[in-house]
Amino acid sequence: MQCHIISIGNELLIGDTVNTNASWLGDVLTNMGVEVTHIHTIGDNYGILKRTLEHALEQADLVITTGGLGPTHDDITKKVVTELFGCELNVDEEILNFIKKIFRERNIPFSKSNYHQAEVPDCCEPLFNTQGTAPGLWFDSDRTKLAVLPGVPYEMKHLMNEKVLPKIKSSNGNTTFRYSHYITTAGVGESTLSDTIIEGLSSILPKEISVAYLPSPQGTRIRISAYGNSQKAVDEKIEPVIAHIKEKAGYLIIGEGKDLTLAQSVGEILADNKFWLATAESCTGGYIANAVTDIPGSSRYFKGGVNAYSNEVKTTQLGVRKDTLEKHGAVSKAVALQMAKGAAKRLNADIAISTTGIAGPGGGTDKKPVGTVWIGFYSEKRHFALHARFTNDRLINKERSAAVALEMVRRCILDIDEMPYGLKKNEA
Amino acid sequence: MQCHIISIGNELLIGDTVNTNASWLGDVLTNMGVEVTHIHTIGDNYGILKRTLEHALEQADLVITTGGLGPTHDDITKKVVTELFGCELNVDEEILNFIKKIFRERNIPFSKSNYHQAEVPDCCEPLFNTQGTAPGLWFDSDRTKLAVLPGVPYEMKHLMNEKVLPKIKSSNGNTTFRYSHYITTAGVGESTLSDTIIEGLSSILPKEISVAYLPSPQGTRIRISAYGNSQKAVDEKIEPVIAHIKEKAGYLIIGEGKDLTLAQSVGEILADNKFWLATAESCTGGYIANAVTDIPGSSRYFKGGVNAYSNEVKTTQLGVRKDTLEKHGAVSKAVALQMAKGAAKRLNADIAISTTGIAGPGGGTDKKPVGTVWIGFYSEKRHFALHARFTNDRLINKERSAAVALEMVRRCILDIDEMPYGLKKNEA
Repeated sequence: MQCHIISIGNELLIGDTVNTNASWLGDVLTNMGVEVTHIHTIGDNYGILKRTLEHALEQADLVITTGGLGPTHDDITKKVVTELFGCELNVDEEILNFIKKIFRERNIPFSKSNYHQAEVPDCCEPLFNTQGTAPGLWFDSDRTKLAVLPGVPYEMKHLMNEKVLPKIKSSNGNTTFRYSHYITTAGVGESTLSDTIIEGLSSILPKEISVAYLPSPQGTRIRISAYGNSQKAVDEKIEPVIAHIKEKAGYLIIGEGKDLTLAQSVGEILADNKFWLATAESCTGGYIANAVTDIPGSSRYFKGGVNAYSNEVKTTQLGVRKDTLEKHGAVSKAVALQMAKGAAKRLNADIAISTTGIAGPGGGTDKKPVGTVWIGFYSEKRHFALHARFTNDRLINKERSAAVALEMVRRCILDIDEMPYGLKKNEA
Repeated sequence: MQCHIISIGNELLIGDTVNTNASWLGDVLTNMGVEVTHIHTIGDNYGILKRTLEHALEQADLVITTGGLGPTHDDITKKVVTELFGCELNVDEEILNFIKKIFRERNIPFSKSNYHQAEVPDCCEPLFNTQGTAPGLWFDSDRTKLAVLPGVPYEMKHLMNEKVLPKIKSSNGNTTFRYSHYITTAGVGESTLSDTIIEGLSSILPKEISVAYLPSPQGTRIRISAYGNSQKAVDEKIEPVIAHIKEKAGYLIIGEGKDLTLAQSVGEILADNKFWLATAESCTGGYIANAVTDIPGSSRYFKGGVNAYSNEVKTTQLGVRKDTLEKHGAVSKAVALQMAKGAAKRLNADIAISTTGIAGPGGGTDKKPVGTVWIGFYSEKRHFALHARFTNDRLINKERSAAVALEMVRRCILDIDEMPYGLKKNEA
């Protein structure tokens, strides 16, 4: 089954928006054995959309469009497909009532252009969109199938997962597909991982298996992919490679699965051990707590935290001593240690982590340049701080500090001595 | 001048790589007054590349391809263009010597496939690539111009900036370019903005000026764009439209500029008024504090905050009364009000905001479904809470709650009575 994707929106052509919808679609379709052969990115232009759609419907078995379904005048996708299939626009009462309900709940006046959102061509199946006001459309002819989806990523993904993928599965014989296995590491850089740790992999790697390193400030994800006509067949094919990687990477592996995050893996370990976590954040300013609470069910192990951005709050809310702040400064081992201990005691947690540093771009000195961060840990058994020197970029410094702090928790609970990125422990 | 971009590489179709090359090209070309009308993303496939290239050369005045110039067998771009233009491949001695030099310096054995890297079609101008081993190619016919560039982003950008853009400028006469002005709003949806507030715009909008709404959970950015032969000329052209939008949108506008964020705008207002902000976050779990501290210099106005994820922390760190929690539950007006007041008092801040809600996916009830959020405000003059009902998506609910809370701060400081998205104030 061959597929064309048509991404619609001027913002994609002029570089305002990077086309992440298309790569997400390419990934999920490829994994289902659908071959994406052409991604068209075009603007909100009636003629070009019509020509491109006609071409795609001629070339492919499956066509998926995203974008151009909004309420504003420049959203023309529904007009084009309605004319192309020579059918009529009718208001779908169920959708209209749902949209009106959303507007009531959100206290937004319901306007004429929103009314148009409920119009659906009478020659297609509307794809009810519980995430927004623009329904998707499904056109099913013997030769070609067409899915018309909104451009808002989470709406598009929702309709794709809930409505379109099941339809493709059933119509697609699904003879061969790509299966990928993901192994996620933390606290190690891509080159260290590929050079030394997974050394010798290429020599045992069959041509039909591909291994990719997907680095992020959290760590590096390893993807092992191969094609096959059954998941079992692919599993058997890639099993030796997975075994090799697991043996070499050892404790650096935080888990498997494409979407596993460090916060999720740490959360599971905390929950399994019935430990409560608390945070005391200065330079990360809430980044860690936000990442922890992005995980559903984090209330099972996260007590909460203090964002001690000012020295005053470090003192009043975490009990950091004034004389320590004066003697060592806010960015110091002593303050990081007191912040972590204070958070654990005051929030009644088993484990607390703290960050204090110079995120930048300002505030750096010769002795404490931008990127200098102290990361503290406190539990009944352990009390120490890590000293790191990151980048000149404020946001990357927050992200890296958070990643080290979370991975430090995982390694401490699992009694792993080595700290992330080889950082040294400075005991209290 | 109209342009088609052809991005070549299987990794782009299967979702391994996001096509950032195309958006970078779209941005630089658009600002030069070149109109990108179609971006084709295709695989390393001889037939599809040939057909797509023929189509693009027919439709556009300028065609730019990226990718498929490497030394491996699946890099077929050079083969295709050579055949398409009916010319011969000859080795370019200068390029050959340069490539050999690179290999000597890197101590890599020079192989036959690398030799092919120095081959150039005799009907084009080679674009010497000092950043890598694959030269770019420039085909210049009276009708259409074609630039063939490598896919490695920094090599592509280097050749584009150094070689291709000057050629386009000269052939384009560089008479016209595009200039965009951005106006950012908050606390209002795209449709409300376009229907009621900027009502009547389309009637006064000259054809050569385009207005686009770029919605996000933070609010909606309005982009006003026009082409002209000088920035001054474009400024004069779009000035009446900007004036109209500013008059209609009024207090909904938080500022101008492409990258302005709500947290930045609120931060400036806090700093100007010498107000200190504190946060008390339950369902947003640090999202607000993280957004506030993403802004350099936020230590001038952000005291810090408490992430009161558990009821225990709401009580011990913010002074929320146990009986209130028992009587009304954590997700209630009373708790939101006490959280905000507690944060202001304990963190010694002028203004405090709080969030408590059911982010989901679990925890919803008939009376308090997922997406139910109370957002509290406290200052000496004002003490109230907003009740909102957002989506079923956990992360979106955090983002929306944070956006309402921050915009609420901006409007209160500026004495604007209307609350974001028309939410009603529930006074203490």
